Amino acid sequence: MPEFSVRFLPEGKQVMAAEGESLFRAAARAGVLIDGSCGGQGACSRCKVIIKEGKVRLAASGNLKDDEKRRGYVLACRSFPESDLVVEVPVTGLPAGLRTVLEGGGDVCGGGQGGLGSLSPLYRKVFLSLKEPAPGDGEDDLARLSRAIRKEAGVGELRPGLDVLRGLPKTLRDAGWKVTVSLAEGIGCGCAEIAEIEPGRVGRKYFGLAVDIGTTTVVAHLVDLESGRTESMKGAYNRQSVYGEDVISRIIYAGEHKDGLEGLQKAVLDTVNGLIREMTEELNIKRVDIKAAVCAGNTAMTHLFLGIDPTYIRLEPYTPAANKIPAVRAGSIGLDIHPQAWVNCVPGVAGFVGGDIVAGVLASEMAFSEKMTLFIDVGTNGEMVLGGGEWLVACACSAGPAFEGGGIRHGLRAVSGAIEHVEVAPGSLAVKYSTVDGVPPLGICGSGLIEVVAQLYKAGVIDRGGNFVFPGRTPRIRDAGEGREFVLVWPEEPALPGGIAVSEAEIKNLLRSKAAVYAGIRSMLKKVGLPAGAIERVIIAGGFGGYINIREAVNIGLLPDIPLDRYTYIGNASVKGAAMALLSRQARQALEEIAGRVTYLDLSADNTFMDEFVAALFIPHTDLSLFPTVT
Amino acid sequence: MPEFSVRFLPEGKQVMAAEGESLFRAAARAGVLIDGSCGGQGACSRCKVIIKEGKVRLAASGNLKDDEKRRGYVLACRSFPESDLVVEVPVTGLPAGLRTVLEGGGDVCGGGQGGLGSLSPLYRKVFLSLKEPAPGDGEDDLARLSRAIRKEAGVGELRPGLDVLRGLPKTLRDAGWKVTVSLAEGIGCGCAEIAEIEPGRVGRKYFGLAVDIGTTTVVAHLVDLESGRTESMKGAYNRQSVYGEDVISRIIYAGEHKDGLEGLQKAVLDTVNGLIREMTEELNIKRVDIKAAVCAGNTAMTHLFLGIDPTYIRLEPYTPAANKIPAVRAGSIGLDIHPQAWVNCVPGVAGFVGGDIVAGVLASEMAFSEKMTLFIDVGTNGEMVLGGGEWLVACACSAGPAFEGGGIRHGLRAVSGAIEHVEVAPGSLAVKYSTVDGVPPLGICGSGLIEVVAQLYKAGVIDRGGNFVFPGRTPRIRDAGEGREFVLVWPEEPALPGGIAVSEAEIKNLLRSKAAVYAGIRSMLKKVGLPAGAIERVIIAGGFGGYINIREAVNIGLLPDIPLDRYTYIGNASVKGAAMALLSRQARQALEEIAGRVTYLDLSADNTFMDEFVAALFIPHTDLSLFPTVT
Ligand code: FES
Ligand SMILES: [Mg+2]
Ligand SMILES: [Mg+2]
Repeated sequence: MPEFSVRFLPEGKQVMAAEGESLFRAAARAGVLIDGSCGGQGACSRCKVIIKEGKVRLAASGNLKDDEKRRGYVLACRSFPESDLVVEVPVTGLPAGLRTVLEGGGDVCGGGQGGLGSLSPLYRKVFLSLKEPAPGDGEDDLARLSRAIRKEAGVGELRPGLDVLRGLPKTLRDAGWKVTVSLAEGIGCGCAEIAEIEPGRVGRKYFGLAVDIGTTTVVAHLVDLESGRTESMKGAYNRQSVYGEDVISRIIYAGEHKDGLEGLQKAVLDTVNGLIREMTEELNIKRVDIKAAVCAGNTAMTHLFLGIDPTYIRLEPYTPAANKIPAVRAGSIGLDIHPQAWVNCVPGVAGFVGGDIVAGVLASEMAFSEKMTLFIDVGTNGEMVLGGGEWLVACACSAGPAFEGGGIRHGLRAVSGAIEHVEVAPGSLAVKYSTVDGVPPLGICGSGLIEVVAQLYKAGVIDRGGNFVFPGRTPRIRDAGEGREFVLVWPEEPALPGGIAVSEAEIKNLLRSKAAVYAGIRSMLKKVGLPAGAIERVIIAGGFGGYINIREAVNIGLLPDIPLDRYTYIGNASVKGAAMALLSRQARQALEEIAGRVTYLDLSADNTFMDEFVAALFIPHTDLSLFPTVT
Repeated sequence: MPEFSVRFLPEGKQVMAAEGESLFRAAARAGVLIDGSCGGQGACSRCKVIIKEGKVRLAASGNLKDDEKRRGYVLACRSFPESDLVVEVPVTGLPAGLRTVLEGGGDVCGGGQGGLGSLSPLYRKVFLSLKEPAPGDGEDDLARLSRAIRKEAGVGELRPGLDVLRGLPKTLRDAGWKVTVSLAEGIGCGCAEIAEIEPGRVGRKYFGLAVDIGTTTVVAHLVDLESGRTESMKGAYNRQSVYGEDVISRIIYAGEHKDGLEGLQKAVLDTVNGLIREMTEELNIKRVDIKAAVCAGNTAMTHLFLGIDPTYIRLEPYTPAANKIPAVRAGSIGLDIHPQAWVNCVPGVAGFVGGDIVAGVLASEMAFSEKMTLFIDVGTNGEMVLGGGEWLVACACSAGPAFEGGGIRHGLRAVSGAIEHVEVAPGSLAVKYSTVDGVPPLGICGSGLIEVVAQLYKAGVIDRGGNFVFPGRTPRIRDAGEGREFVLVWPEEPALPGGIAVSEAEIKNLLRSKAAVYAGIRSMLKKVGLPAGAIERVIIAGGFGGYINIREAVNIGLLPDIPLDRYTYIGNASVKGAAMALLSRQARQALEEIAGRVTYLDLSADNTFMDEFVAALFIPHTDLSLFPTVT
């Protein structure tokens, strides 16, 4: 089969592709990220690229607009090279801005991440001045060293590596008994490894890596383990998305393709390694100076990251291989930090409540609070935790991709140009909107969509079930082929041939998403026998939370109708929790304690949930008494 | 520099040697064992070989007899190739028989090595029939497996390898939840590694290796870990002896030669790997079916075995790198069993009381006995332990090589042809002797030497100080150049041109050796304030003990004068203790407990010892009241 060279713009990455390989796959191999929520099935029409040079064979038309075709767009997953190619990947498909998935505000766990005790990082260098052995004291070198380490660093059992032991006598004596030892601890392990021993006082800095491995986005913090300061933070889309947008499709991919699991593992490692490269270049440090890592991911992501078979997470009774996984050496999985560094994965609770949530709960401090707290992390999946210092209940629901701008024609993640705030004037139906970064609109993100639905309901455009019921005639409402849609941005406006609109089907989609989340919250409340009013604090974490208008979210019945001042936004709590674990032994113990204490409520095995879900499909809810402040 | 091929007979091993390399070194590289107690310095004259073909340059004459030279003998350490060579290594230099260093009797710890609790081997396969996950039970695969293992095998914390975790879900389900797990435990570690998981019930046998790494000899047992039976035992001379006969000269070699430590490590590994090969061939099993190892060696041997710098063991204050060393993977040191198998070294007490003694004390059961016991292991070094269930004191003395047939012109280890029993008739001085295996005499071993001294004293040939004082004239006493000697075997007797004789200097040498051992025992007794009579049991372990005549040993003042029925011989207690650790968790815990409980008495820092030593240089002792039954 002939092979052609394919170059992708604007990054310029090049790869050889066989005649039978789609540009979507070729891009994945080249490490070029092309959007695509259907994983290359030709169904989502998001993998648009422009052929700048060369010829492709088009397998099927896909769902492209005529003017898109005119402008040279093709679907990458339906295009196969017939010559050498130059392919442009539109900028909206690239991670142009990842504000919300990075730190992005949040005020619960502010400051130095040290809330949990003094600095006791996973890896640290300790300077020791030892007493020389004297006749009669009968202590061997290792025992002498260990005693000093215990006194200085307060660690329990010590394990020396054989490499360290081999040179220990000479190192100690050549250094005049003044040495710097490097200690590597772990999550779920009371002992510390003596990883290195160096003569004298070593001033070189050393770092830890905290990673939130999200299904959609991966966020990494690089932390100076001595000062506790986060020196750099970067985010990127998870390169696994070329294998499927959501967790389930990736698990299927892993199980059904030869080397599927390896491919998925490589994709996420490439993603994290890319962030490591960016951060180390920014700070001008060596990758081997990163000496420890803590990763917080949902259970499937953690499995894929380590190359563990995730198949049974998606099959009843949804059993992971392990929720609590021992630390592994970075070199053994190909994480591009010091090869002997330990990579710790935050322990999870169940197949759909993973280490990301446990880390988030840690960062939220709810697990040690007397206040009844609700923690919500909504992305493609919605995970909720309810409780406080005495007990914790968690559940997960499939929220669908709507809150992340997926599954919607003009949907967009919360990147530059995404419409995030919308007002629709009753009567005239005039639309005011604002976008992320204030640039011309490119689409609408999850939080924008919530506001659209709330505003359309208030303006009488849709009824409580999401049906278009506007009595008058207006160009804002038009026929979209498979039903009606509401135009937010006219086609005349710059750079958007078809304008931006939201269809009735898409609104109903969003109502299903919000119903799932609300029904999950209600199921947990019922389980513990509490009314919504008992919730003293709601902590919103994760990608979609940063821009959300809480009032409107309550208005559509996504969030419970309790006083708005009880809501707080914490930002990416998972990466914060991971960073805390890098720095504090108490935090590491707390992670274990939380993972062990959370009771998982399996909604799929729960009739309450289905009833609650159906009741929540209306705006704001079938039972209006649950939303007293919503008119 | 030109290179020549050198072939060694009778083994036929071949190696290329440079002009400047001695045959002694070349043989070491080829893995051919040539006797030599001075480590190739031309001093001991034991490395005799015959040049069958080719030409060598002789560096110095060495100490060869004229008739030896006539018969073509040269010293290997003084011979350098000038052409391709065929070299014959005389059979007396080869490990012809190793009876004493193998099991060789002993009756304290008889039977199945199971004295310490039920079988709980370091490595074992456990069959499990698991309950399939059901909706609502919320247990992940690893937790389910771990729970079953804990119930079935009674182990504490479990650590799964990443390799095991990766395939765990599929393995469990494909096997219908009936699996065999392999558990690897360690000394000094409460946890077990899940090393392997296989579908169904696995019948394949698996083995453990117990090794006594002695300075002179290495003994290995291959143990069926399921039945607890020792299936094979082999012994060999430690190939390190080409680098020096005793511990001190090897430590010096390791420190003063580039790659010296590596060479010594390789030599002992070659020795052990050779035994492994022999045993696995004999039993027709695969080396990877050996899944665990326990090694008991003195502290320096353990350091060299693992490649740990031993330099400071020999320098005041005699500090080892570590007495307690964590287990290492076999693959990481090149031990030729399953590469992932854990190699456990029995913890030691001090630089000169190592894991071999701790293992021996375990096998002797003295540490759990109410009887006041004295444990003696005499080889090149003498190590003694005194005590019982409540306390244990240990000391070490340099006994010199005499007890192992070293440092004596006609000395020989206890191999075939070594004279082990001697009677000298008073008056006529007629000599009766018997040899190991009853073959014609080739030399005299340590226990033979003790009897010679005792008999010569009784016959009035020597006085209490070891001086020749026989009044009459007899051909048995002749001038040997540097003093007189007593002829045991006439030159006329077969195959021994010069006969076999023991000189005055050699007798005084032996008196120094026996004085050191006795002074050590006395120092310990003084330390704890007990008379020799308080010793209720003496356990003699190690190479020299098997043939020793206790009565004669008391007569010369080597052993305390207490009723002879208190003496027992245990054989190679170190390898027995190592084998017990392979099989029993209680034994492993006991090893740690013993190593931690023994109080080390440093004789070099003790004036008592020097006084006792000087007083013990006489037959049987300066203070005759200590030897009431000796006339
Ligand atoms: S249509 Fe190409 S990836 Fe979805
Ligand atoms: Mg997340
Ligand atoms: Mg020994």
